This record gives sequence, C-alpha cells and structure tokens, in this order.
Amino acid sequence: MSKLINFGAGPAALPEEVLNEAAIAVKDYKGSGLSILEIPHRGHLFLDLLTEANALVLELLQLNEEYKVIWMQGGGRLQFCMLPLNFLKSIAGYIDSGHWAAEAMAQANLYGNTKIIASSKDKNYKFIPPVTAIPEAYDYIHFTTNNTIFGTQLQEIPQATAPLIADMSSEILSRAFDYSKFKLIYAVAQKNLGAAGVTLAVVHQSLLATEVRPLPDILSYQAMARQNSLVNTPPVFGIYTSLLMLRWIKTKGLNKLFDQNKEKAKLLYQSIDNHPKFYGVADPGSRSSMNVCFRLEAEEDNKRFLDFCLNRNITGIKGHRSVGGFRASIYNAISPEDVNHLVQAIQDFE
Amino acid sequence: MSKLINFGAGPAALPEEVLNEAAIAVKDYKGSGLSILEIPHRGHLFLDLLTEANALVLELLQLNEEYKVIWMQGGGRLQFCMLPLNFLKSIAGYIDSGHWAAEAMAQANLYGNTKIIASSKDKNYKFIPPVTAIPEAYDYIHFTTNNTIFGTQLQEIPQATAPLIADMSSEILSRAFDYSKFKLIYAVAQKNLGAAGVTLAVVHQSLLATEVRPLPDILSYQAMARQNSLVNTPPVFGIYTSLLMLRWIKTKGLNKLFDQNKEKAKLLYQSIDNHPKFYGVADPGSRSSMNVCFRLEAEEDNKRFLDFCLNRNITGIKGHRSVGGFRASIYNAISPEDVNHLVQAIQDFE
Repeated sequence: MSKLINFGAGPAALPEEVLNEAAIAVKDYKGSGLSILEIPHRGHLFLDLLTEANALVLELLQLNEEYKVIWMQGGGRLQFCMLPLNFLKSIAGYIDSGHWAAEAMAQANLYGNTKIIASSKDKNYKFIPPVTAIPEAYDYIHFTTNNTIFGTQLQEIPQATAPLIADMSSEILSRAFDYSKFKLIYAVAQKNLGAAGVTLAVVHQSLLATEVRPLPDILSYQAMARQNSLVNTPPVFGIYTSLLMLRWIKTKGLNKLFDQNKEKAKLLYQSIDNHPKFYGVADPGSRSSMNVCFRLEAEEDNKRFLDFCLNRNITGIKGHRSVGGFRASIYNAISPEDVNHLVQAIQDFE
Repeated sequence: MSKLINFGAGPAALPEEVLNEAAIAVKDYKGSGLSILEIPHRGHLFLDLLTEANALVLELLQLNEEYKVIWMQGGGRLQFCMLPLNFLKSIAGYIDSGHWAAEAMAQANLYGNTKIIASSKDKNYKFIPPVTAIPEAYDYIHFTTNNTIFGTQLQEIPQATAPLIADMSSEILSRAFDYSKFKLIYAVAQKNLGAAGVTLAVVHQSLLATEVRPLPDILSYQAMARQNSLVNTPPVFGIYTSLLMLRWIKTKGLNKLFDQNKEKAKLLYQSIDNHPKFYGVADPGSRSSMNVCFRLEAEEDNKRFLDFCLNRNITGIKGHRSVGGFRASIYNAISPEDVNHLVQAIQDFE
C-alpha cells in the first residue's frame, strides 16, 4: 500500500526524514557498530544525544536554564499521579476543560484536595472555560492547553500567582506561546514530538526545591532532574526519535512552522464551515489548531465518508470513541499538502 | 566501523535479524503505509501484534492462562514501587542477593514493612544467600533471580506458601526454569527481550483478585491486566521489538537456546579459571549463566585489557561502576561465536 496520510491523534504521523533516520539508527547508530537499541545509556553516544535534546528543548521553547528538562516513561497518566505526589500539600486547582483534564484531576484526588477552578463540562466541553480569578494559596493550577478529544485550545494564559502547570501533549511546539508563564510543562511524545513511550517534562527549579512527601526516585521530578533523567535505563530510542523531531522543527524554523500550522487549521475549518453537510464541534473562539473535530449532519453517512477518505489514502480521522464524528489531527508533521488533500475530500464529498 | 560484539549488560545486543526487521517496520509496518511508530494503538495492526506477543510469552514461559501478560513502562524501578503498592498489606520478605534486590526492598520500605529473609551482603553478594524457611504469613517474597552486577544466579527455587515474586530482568527466557513456581515475574526488555522502554510482567490471577489500597490505573496490575496493557498509549515500538525477540527465541528453539547458553557460560568460565591472571568474582555454586563477572589479579592492567578487546571489536565488558573489573553479559542474542571471540581474547592476553 502506498504511504497513507495519517490524521490520527496519536501515535501520529512523523516526517519521512525522521522515520528514515530512525530506521538507519536501528541498524547502526552513527557508524558506531551498534544499533541505537544497543548503545549503553551511560556512554558518550547516548549522553551526547541527551545533552543535545535537552538544549534543543529549552532553545525551541525559549526557556532559560532555570528550567530542567526531564525525559520519562509512563505517559500522561503517570504525570497525572506525579503532579500531586510531588507538589500537592494543601489544595490544587484544575481547569476542567475536557476528558484528560478531568482524568488528571481524578488521579490527584487520590492523593489530596483539589478544586475545579473553571469547567465547561455541562456544555460537553465545547469551549475552554474562562478563568476569572485564581486564589493565591493554591499549590498549583493545572491546565490541559489543548483538548484532543473535543478540539479546543487555550487561547490566553490567565494571570496567577500560584504556579501554572500545563499538559501540552497535543500541542507542544506547534504555536507561538509564552511557555515561561508555566512552571511545569509536560507532553507525551507521540503527537508533535516523536514516538509513544517517552514523556517530556520541563520543570522550573522553583518547583524542585522541596519535596512534599518521601518519594521513590522514579516518581520524583526532583530526583529525575538531579540525575539528568538517568534514574534508571531511559527509553533510548524514544528520546532519540524526539531529538530527530526537535532537529526537524529547528530546521523548518519555528515561526514558519507556527504560521503553517495556523494556515493549515484555517483552511480546514473553512472547508468544514463552507460545506452544507459538515459542521465544526468546538465553539469558534476555542477552536484548536491541532485537532479539528467535525461532524456530518447526517450521521448515517459517517462510514461512507471514512471509506471515501480511505480511498484517497486518508486515515486516522475517526473521532475519539467517547464522542464519535471525525477528528483530523494536524500536528507539525502534517504538511499543508496533506491538509489540502483532506480539504479536497471534504469538498468532493456529496 | 564494523559491527561490534556487544557484551553490555543492557541496553544489550540484539540479533541482526531482529534489528533488520525493526528497521523495516520503522519505515513501513507490514506494508500498511504507516510506520510502526504511527500505527494506532487501538487498531487491529497493533492489537494483532499484542495478542501474538501475549500468547508467545505464555507459550515460551510454559505458563497457562491463569497468568496475565502485561506490558508496561518505567523499568524495574517502577515495578519496585508497584509491588508494595499492589500487594503489601502487613509484611513482605526480600532476598537480599545484590544491588537491585536491595533497591527493590528500599522502595518497598516507603510503603510498608519488609523483612530480609536471607542476605549475602556481608560477603559482597558473592553468592545467592540460601533460603532455609519462609514464614507463611508473608504477603509476598521477592527474589532477584539473576544479579547482573555480581554475576550470581538463583539455582534452586525454595519451597514456600507465600506468593513468590521474581525480578528476572537479566535472565528471562534464557534457561530451563519452572516459571510456574512464581506468582509474578517481571523483566525489563533491554537484556534478553528487546529494547529499553518496555517492561514485561506476568501475573497470576490470584494476585489480581483484590487491591490493597486505591491506586491509579497506571500503577495497578489489576487495571493493567483488565485493560490488556492499554490503560494508556503503550510503547508500541518497544512491544513490537519484544515480539520480534519472542519470535526469534521460538524459531531458535527453547531447549537449543538454553543448551547453548549453558555451553557459552561454561566455555567463558573455563577460560577465566584456566588463565593465570584472571579470576571469577562469584562463588562457583552461584555463578550466573548470563553475566560473567571476572577480574585481573593486576588491576593496573584493566585498561590495557579493555583496549585489547576493543581492538578485536569487543565492547561492553567493563564491570558495573559500583564494583569494577569486567563483566561479559552473554544474553540470548550473543552467539557461541561471539563468546569464542572473547574466550580467544582472554587466552591471548598476556
């Protein structure tokens, strides 16, 4: 089968250059006589690539060295646990903007007190709930800045004294954003940043000063930062694939990529808005530039549209099982041409 | 550089066939038009490979369907935490047979009471401490069946009523073993079973019946088993690489592979025992067939021997930083020819 255009929400499409380089490294890493799967994690081959990846993360996020870069395993769900374990003393605030935001809070409830600061749950998460005021005394405030399932995205970062923490799994490095407004940012790699099996966290040192409770190193941001992600054998191949993505992003040029992502989303939303049979799910003011969720007025045609797309080598556009409809994830690796292909399919669908 | 013979303790050598197939899949998985890094984890492409991997694990370990196969992230260290979190009610027993065994117990001490059942710490872990009697009332007894750093290996499984749990990270599927004596077996993949970033656990259903405390799904064996390892996005590439290793082991033939491993270890220990300048570290009765730890009488020659070996394309034989000397890890992927190469180097070293 020829190459499919993969609009899946994650594991998501990766650039062909990245896949080719990763494949070469699986056979032999940099002419070392060893596969990337075989190199020792305490040797210079790995430490060099880790150093480069750490530096590129800070450079591209435009953060200074007050932030520590950590590579972990366990996905978003382990982060959901680690946040309260590491930082929840009295109370933490959660912005209830979607399924994953609610899951993050549910995990925190196992370890301490939380409060919903704002919610759009009763409107089926169609928009990012506006945050009016954040009490100072909170240990942290948790945001999911992009809600993959509902196709909404935080447009403006609220003012707050409490440390802001953001799950940016499905949008990191996809748009111009003042990352320094957050004290901790985390993201699974399998959307904009590589392959499933590695999670990036960038943590301001102010959060690493004290530990709320005794923790095993593997669940402690402090220990992970102190040991440069080497508390145990790291997911070497996953970190390497993320490094390839970081290099690719840098080569593309941040601003060019951000503009491209904006343009991609605009074209796709236009084609949906202009089509008599399709409609967008999210409120226009909260629309995500990464996950475009849309539906057919006549749901009985859903299967026909999926088949219609697959005939044009388009895959991954089925909506999340909890909401149905369609979702096109247009992460960094999705080119304007890929989006045009989907736009054409939407226009051509009767 | 030509292909190195990698005696590293992990990430360890993988068979060339496995590396080649993994590299192909990174570009295109089974002609699907998607990379193995891009396939959706709830689609048939992934579910089919997961089903095959689960079945092969049970078949090769010769375990029945009372055991559940779980694929996780976080390495041995996350298992060290999950064991007490999931199973420790009143007290757990630990066999203190080496560095990782002690680490496992240290993590358990964060969550409850433990007791050392046997220890060889005061003899620098030169042997597997004999276990004479195990009290019935223990929640579980933890073994590290192969001690990578000290080159020792459990020879006989003690009788016990309490559930036995084994860290088999550096020996799983390397020798004939009655795996059914254990109620839970876990192993990181990067030694005998694939690449870093995935951990296998095989759990008897009797351990999954109750939960000792409320746990987030990502830290619960019960939830992981119930959801067939899909509590969240699994490390797809890591599981696939393990599947390739499982297939490779099956094709080689279990018994043939086990005999080969025994023979490899025998040859290597003989060359060390017969050499006037080298000596083995572990007591002969506890010697590991996977990690052969040895030293030079004249430690000032260490560097010269490492260089001597590297000149013959031999790498990864430096001992663990905590003990020094040399360590040759001769996991499944290390062929008899590879071992002969090292034997020859030892013999030729002046």
